Amino acid sequence: MQLQFLGTGAGVPAKHRNVTSIALKRMNKQGAVWLFDCGEATQQQILYTTIKPRRIEKIFISHLHGDHIYGLPGLLGSRSFQGGTEPLTVYGPKGIEQFVQTTLQVSATYVKYELNVVEIEDGTIIEEDDCTIEVRKLDHGIDSFGYRVKEKDRPGELQVEKLRDLGIPPGPVYQQLKMKRVVECEGKTLNGEDFLGEDKKGLIVTILGDTRLCQSAFELADGADVLIHEATFEQNSEEMAYEYFHSTTSQAALVAKKAGVKELWLTHISSRYTLEDADRLEKEARAIFPNSHVAYDLLETVISSVNEKS
Amino acid sequence: MQLQFLGTGAGVPAKHRNVTSIALKRMNKQGAVWLFDCGEATQQQILYTTIKPRRIEKIFISHLHGDHIYGLPGLLGSRSFQGGTEPLTVYGPKGIEQFVQTTLQVSATYVKYELNVVEIEDGTIIEEDDCTIEVRKLDHGIDSFGYRVKEKDRPGELQVEKLRDLGIPPGPVYQQLKMKRVVECEGKTLNGEDFLGEDKKGLIVTILGDTRLCQSAFELADGADVLIHEATFEQNSEEMAYEYFHSTTSQAALVAKKAGVKELWLTHISSRYTLEDADRLEKEARAIFPNSHVAYDLLETVISSVNEKS
Ligand SMILES: [Zn+2]
Ligand SMILES: [Zn+2]
Repeated sequence: MQLQFLGTGAGVPAKHRNVTSIALKRMNKQGAVWLFDCGEATQQQILYTTIKPRRIEKIFISHLHGDHIYGLPGLLGSRSFQGGTEPLTVYGPKGIEQFVQTTLQVSATYVKYELNVVEIEDGTIIEEDDCTIEVRKLDHGIDSFGYRVKEKDRPGELQVEKLRDLGIPPGPVYQQLKMKRVVECEGKTLNGEDFLGEDKKGLIVTILGDTRLCQSAFELADGADVLIHEATFEQNSEEMAYEYFHSTTSQAALVAKKAGVKELWLTHISSRYTLEDADRLEKEARAIFPNSHVAYDLLETVISSVNEKS
Repeated sequence: MQLQFLGTGAGVPAKHRNVTSIALKRMNKQGAVWLFDCGEATQQQILYTTIKPRRIEKIFISHLHGDHIYGLPGLLGSRSFQGGTEPLTVYGPKGIEQFVQTTLQVSATYVKYELNVVEIEDGTIIEEDDCTIEVRKLDHGIDSFGYRVKEKDRPGELQVEKLRDLGIPPGPVYQQLKMKRVVECEGKTLNGEDFLGEDKKGLIVTILGDTRLCQSAFELADGADVLIHEATFEQNSEEMAYEYFHSTTSQAALVAKKAGVKELWLTHISSRYTLEDADRLEKEARAIFPNSHVAYDLLETVISSVNEKS
């Protein structure tokens, strides 16, 4: 999977940081793209990427604040205008359906694809062949969800050499073994488990909406390959962060550390901080969790498991 | 007055043209700015201008298509966030109130200024000390309004030399004469009318929403100093323009010519045309109305009456 940050700012747009949106490129057969949040001008940011709006299959909204949803109607409309015909589903807190319906209806926007809107509650909201998504409420004054995307583990490679050494010729039996079945062949009893490499661990990506430091964050981030956490304020502004239901750089790093994640990306940076401040913010987080990074608009990063990396 | 085009594209944003918004800077004491339409990312475009959101006093929406309104909730919210406390009024077709209310309500956006929304019908919608605004429906499938902004004429300068020659000393009588009153002074009967230069003609600016070539356009543009007319398509695409309720470059120029305006600005240019195509589009219009210009994003232009120019 790959991540691309489309907007990394908080509240109001700045020249150097647009309001929030994150693209998760599944890198599967369909080339599916999932968006997390869709602040105003997300479709304009997409013009500077290789993302095709028609490839966007799902949009997950963390919470209903304007800096996370005002780009939704425009993107939904343009996706149709630009020839998108595949279904699209928007997930979000209660209220998202009214927002989508009213904005499209008032503007006489009729999309030419199947548009579904799903209002979510804590729990598993997606259970697909290759991945699951679990959500949980955070602490942001209004309902704000964190998403934990977990790819399913895939069986390891079939150890063909080992089978050849035993004199088992290639054929349908190989397929059976790949599915971990026990089969009889050439007078031998073979267990698939014995001829498969280690399972390929599915990646875990946790993307949290705006939040104070809270328990759900630790749970959603547990053992994730990548955690994306808001860091609206710097380390010293903990009181302000609390007052406005946001987090600091250090609090985000603490979650990453305690949850045992592999990599932390900080986003939703207040417009009070310049691009030059990013180094300082990054250092604050790294003091607690070394593999911390401050995102910037349009940044792309590949998510790979530790085995793949080594 | 000054005009600044914040977005000059049609339907969907392109890198080189954002969707529609136009700022009219009144250049009066308050430094008031009025917006006409507010497509998505208008507040982002404003970051590249000297316009302060708190100075925006009125926003006029021509019609409810997404490319003209999706930037409204973000701008209204940010204006409050950035300290705007003066009242603001949004004018637009029936439906604009539901759009504003729902988007702000769903997103829990509470602005800290008095926000009024006025749903308009054909007629005079504003009658202020220094100007009036008249609107009329155009021809765009859904209700789309054209706006005619007319500054009131101001009395000419008091001809002080002439008064001095007659031995009339400066004093309260000068104020009376400025107001065109008849006064007795130094044994003489003086009529203000005789001591004032020519009236300063109030400027007329006509800004039309999306439309086919239609009669209302001619009436709203009659004798205007500046006409802003959509030109979604080139000259040869008249059929397509008709089908989609839009105008061509030549149709816009025809309105300018027949209405006897002084200057024509073309905007709402389809994203199919590159910035390089603008020259060609401009030439098409100039063949019919020589003082035609194709707008581009962030362009500023001063509106002055012919007398002031000469
Ligand atoms: Zn936010
Ligand atoms: Zn339009």
